[in-house]
Amino acid sequence: MSYKAPVKDLLFNMKHLANIEAVAQLPGFEDAGLDTAQAVLEECAKFNEDVIAPLNVAGDLQPSSWKDGVVTTTPGFKEAFKQYAEGGWQGLQHAPEFGGQGLPKTIGAACQEILNSANLSFALCPLLTDGAIEALVTAGSDELKATYLDKLISGQWTGTMNLTEPQAGSDLALVRSRAEPQPDGCYKVFGTKIFITYGEHDMAENIIHLVLARVQGAPEGVKGISLFVVPKFLVNADGSLGARNDAHCVSIEHKLGIKASPTAVLQFGDNGGATGYLVGEENRGLEYMFIMMNAARYAVGLQGISVSERSYQQAVAYARERVQSRPVDGSVKGSATIIHHPDVRRMLMTMRALIEGTRATAITAAAAYDAAHKHPDAQVRQDNQTFYEFMVPLVKGYSTEISQEVTALGVQVHGGMGFIEETGSAQHYRDCKILTIYEGTTAIQANDLVGRKTGRDGGAVAKAIAAQIEQTEAQLSALGGEPAQAVARELALARQAFLDVVDYMVANGRENPNAAYAGSVPYLMLAGNLVAGWNLGRALLVASAQLSQGEDKAFYEAKITTAHFYAEHILPRTAALRSAIVNGGHSVMELPMDAF
Amino acid sequence: MSYKAPVKDLLFNMKHLANIEAVAQLPGFEDAGLDTAQAVLEECAKFNEDVIAPLNVAGDLQPSSWKDGVVTTTPGFKEAFKQYAEGGWQGLQHAPEFGGQGLPKTIGAACQEILNSANLSFALCPLLTDGAIEALVTAGSDELKATYLDKLISGQWTGTMNLTEPQAGSDLALVRSRAEPQPDGCYKVFGTKIFITYGEHDMAENIIHLVLARVQGAPEGVKGISLFVVPKFLVNADGSLGARNDAHCVSIEHKLGIKASPTAVLQFGDNGGATGYLVGEENRGLEYMFIMMNAARYAVGLQGISVSERSYQQAVAYARERVQSRPVDGSVKGSATIIHHPDVRRMLMTMRALIEGTRATAITAAAAYDAAHKHPDAQVRQDNQTFYEFMVPLVKGYSTEISQEVTALGVQVHGGMGFIEETGSAQHYRDCKILTIYEGTTAIQANDLVGRKTGRDGGAVAKAIAAQIEQTEAQLSALGGEPAQAVARELALARQAFLDVVDYMVANGRENPNAAYAGSVPYLMLAGNLVAGWNLGRALLVASAQLSQGEDKAFYEAKITTAHFYAEHILPRTAALRSAIVNGGHSVMELPMDAF
Repeated sequence: MSYKAPVKDLLFNMKHLANIEAVAQLPGFEDAGLDTAQAVLEECAKFNEDVIAPLNVAGDLQPSSWKDGVVTTTPGFKEAFKQYAEGGWQGLQHAPEFGGQGLPKTIGAACQEILNSANLSFALCPLLTDGAIEALVTAGSDELKATYLDKLISGQWTGTMNLTEPQAGSDLALVRSRAEPQPDGCYKVFGTKIFITYGEHDMAENIIHLVLARVQGAPEGVKGISLFVVPKFLVNADGSLGARNDAHCVSIEHKLGIKASPTAVLQFGDNGGATGYLVGEENRGLEYMFIMMNAARYAVGLQGISVSERSYQQAVAYARERVQSRPVDGSVKGSATIIHHPDVRRMLMTMRALIEGTRATAITAAAAYDAAHKHPDAQVRQDNQTFYEFMVPLVKGYSTEISQEVTALGVQVHGGMGFIEETGSAQHYRDCKILTIYEGTTAIQANDLVGRKTGRDGGAVAKAIAAQIEQTEAQLSALGGEPAQAVARELALARQAFLDVVDYMVANGRENPNAAYAGSVPYLMLAGNLVAGWNLGRALLVASAQLSQGEDKAFYEAKITTAHFYAEHILPRTAALRSAIVNGGHSVMELPMDAF
Repeated sequence: MSYKAPVKDLLFNMKHLANIEAVAQLPGFEDAGLDTAQAVLEECAKFNEDVIAPLNVAGDLQPSSWKDGVVTTTPGFKEAFKQYAEGGWQGLQHAPEFGGQGLPKTIGAACQEILNSANLSFALCPLLTDGAIEALVTAGSDELKATYLDKLISGQWTGTMNLTEPQAGSDLALVRSRAEPQPDGCYKVFGTKIFITYGEHDMAENIIHLVLARVQGAPEGVKGISLFVVPKFLVNADGSLGARNDAHCVSIEHKLGIKASPTAVLQFGDNGGATGYLVGEENRGLEYMFIMMNAARYAVGLQGISVSERSYQQAVAYARERVQSRPVDGSVKGSATIIHHPDVRRMLMTMRALIEGTRATAITAAAAYDAAHKHPDAQVRQDNQTFYEFMVPLVKGYSTEISQEVTALGVQVHGGMGFIEETGSAQHYRDCKILTIYEGTTAIQANDLVGRKTGRDGGAVAKAIAAQIEQTEAQLSALGGEPAQAVARELALARQAFLDVVDYMVANGRENPNAAYAGSVPYLMLAGNLVAGWNLGRALLVASAQLSQGEDKAFYEAKITTAHFYAEHILPRTAALRSAIVNGGHSVMELPMDAF
């Protein structure tokens, strides 16, 4: 099943919801206006449709394989990654001083969505490399930067994030890997890391592992964790590759999905110690790792949108082609294509609305990120930063949770054929299941939302966002027309539910933490749902204005209909979530542990 | 991961919600009281825990395989099926005159739940055989009965249902297989059937295919379909096996889940015609097939509960064992088992509540089935029949839809380990995806609910059930205590939402079919949710009464807590569904087909 990048919808979002022309006013982004965005996206679409997307099924059928420490990726991946690197795609958002293109996240996010739709497994290698780059840019010494950044940004080398150990997943306090300082200033690193995405592969000359470990004598818990660069091959002074480091892949996992992406068990220091280089200062590793994590969390949120989009396109194609049963309204005599049937339409509209809503949220958040980093006014930077930080758990948590729903519907639209692997729809259902888990499970995102993003400021940012939503409601009410009225009405109900829950979280977060955190994931789902609905409401306002100018009728009418559907079918879920959170805090923990 | 049958909860349901002692008053079921139920269930549990459940992972790792028309099942399956047959399990619910044990569905359903939890793939062979038996009992001639029933009921032979063809899935009007009458009274059958579960295998001596086909000159559409018995091996007059029939398995499917269960493509008549015997009368095949389908739909609903239970047990075991992070309430210093964390508890409680709710609905429905068939009073039979028929789409649709949610949560509780196939949790997530599809998709069940079960009688049965629910609310309100009050309150809200939707369906079903059927699946989910919540409310009343007599404190308190959780966390979803159905009928079909 081929993939067609939704360039038009991405540009709509960038232009109207993320205000790309304002992004292009920011220092350093002067060339990054709509024209640039369009040119980049079109090239990105072409490359991914032609080169990367066709490898998606192959990756599932011929996953990466391991033999004697060597990982061989799916046939075609190595060549495709070479093209990816040569096209400059790895450097899209990175600093020009290290060879990047320095484009804003607003454009970069759209490109990432396309890449991930084309091939989730393939896209993980650049995704993790981005994280390694980010950490080095932020905390690496000049020497580390000089040695590694150019080659990571050019795609000559790739990067990994080594956090997890068998006993330490979400709980990094339990990390046991250790690092011993050496007289020459470097360290010897020892330990076992698991679940290391692209921890070993054959697509690049070198792999730069960023590894969490404890220096001897460091404090217990997360305050005693440091971050190290541990390259697969040591790097000579002239930049050429030196000796093989003592970091080896002892196996890769047999997974439910994203099978082409090798998930490595890495063994550090079994032969005397892996040479590592401290990033920043000792015992600040978690802080640096969070830099990588935050970028990666947003990116994983995009993956949720991406896999949903791919699943949707496939479901639409099948629904247009499969003939089965007479429409209930009698509009066709005899059997018709199943897209005529109301429940198939309901499923397709649900998929579409969830995708467009989460996409709008993600791109809007990206623009805030850009302003937070580049705006000349400190207050504007701060406001955008807090907005962005509130959005990250929603982009990560909500977009990935809805990808489970969307891909399940994708299979369901196919009926029995969906269950047959050759059809390809089931791959998305399998692939997406990791998205609610890695880079912090939905619960971890939700705890972040409850604690750092809501409790810490007494709900101030949350309420400020609610106030913005209220303005959109007023504009919709003023606009008239049934869709706008429906969106205004449902948004108001959802916003009130959100405010009730924000109050509840602020009141209970510290006093009654079990009752608050029992509602953390429902709160995340409520907030993500509301914000996506809000952004579709904003989209409706734009579409209505464009229509009145006679623009592109079909596209803008579809945008209005999708917002209308979202409001009537998806936003009301917030009422159920509010009720569960506010009334149900106690019954979650009521059953004694041994009664399960 | 081992499986422990929930015998205690099943007996609770049979005794208190399904009133097994009343079932034992029905003619023919005199020996089928609680003692019998307990004895049968304990034996069933032991057999399935020891023999069938251990083959579940093996079935996933070493699926059935096809070579040159021969299907070899997973090692161990053949021997296990022999034990299954020898234990008399195939005949549990079937007529003693053909060698069955003649037990009520109330007991049979509980045994089926256990078997399906033990091994969904294995259980499909008996499930389809049950369907074939049912059709022959109802519509077969004495000769067909004499030839086939004993051996099907003893498990010496197995049965299949052959409906689907490449162009005819949900839409049986499109069936093209044909049957030519022969001078000797039998028929020659020709055609291709796909998705035939256990259409070929090595577990029994003979396979009795029940095949839909058109006799030459029959009317078009579903009114021209007849049902035929087409045995794999012809049967001699003395009951011994004769010649190989012209029915061959040309391939089996590569599926997302239930991999041990061979899904066959069968080719009938490629070498001159497969010998078939008409079941009942010509052109009434669909009617007979629906007898099989209705039994099978209920059974597939049980499968949803079964796979959910298995996933739940595995998630609980992992949550008790995996140590990760400090509890937010500070109840443990340092990292604790994850069952301490509120969100893990929320996930486990959600799984538990959905399972106990759907189980209560299924067993209650089974008792109605028994009364509908055996009660001496015609009016009682009729009332129970309409109740049962209303329940079938809920048992099938809601139980299987919630199995998607439950098994996804099962993976999620495992975190990253859930995504690794060796853990075993992902198998349930893959296996369950077929349940919302086969034996009629959720949409097909929902159309049945909207049309035949609600529209046809103007919502009379639906409203009668709502009236019963209202009585339960009154009893709960009178009982006092926070859990009972919460359940009464949430039930009342959900019941009102249900009544609104029933009125909407009655008003729109014929006048505005697109708007009605756009809400068909949400209506099914609402009704299924409400009825499960109602049955848990009934369970709460029983548990409270038992507690006041000092019985089994932990068990009954857990029952109350689970009902409480269901009411606060699951029942409120009905409000969102009501809103989507009643307000959203138009926006589902608003987007033009070519705008997708």
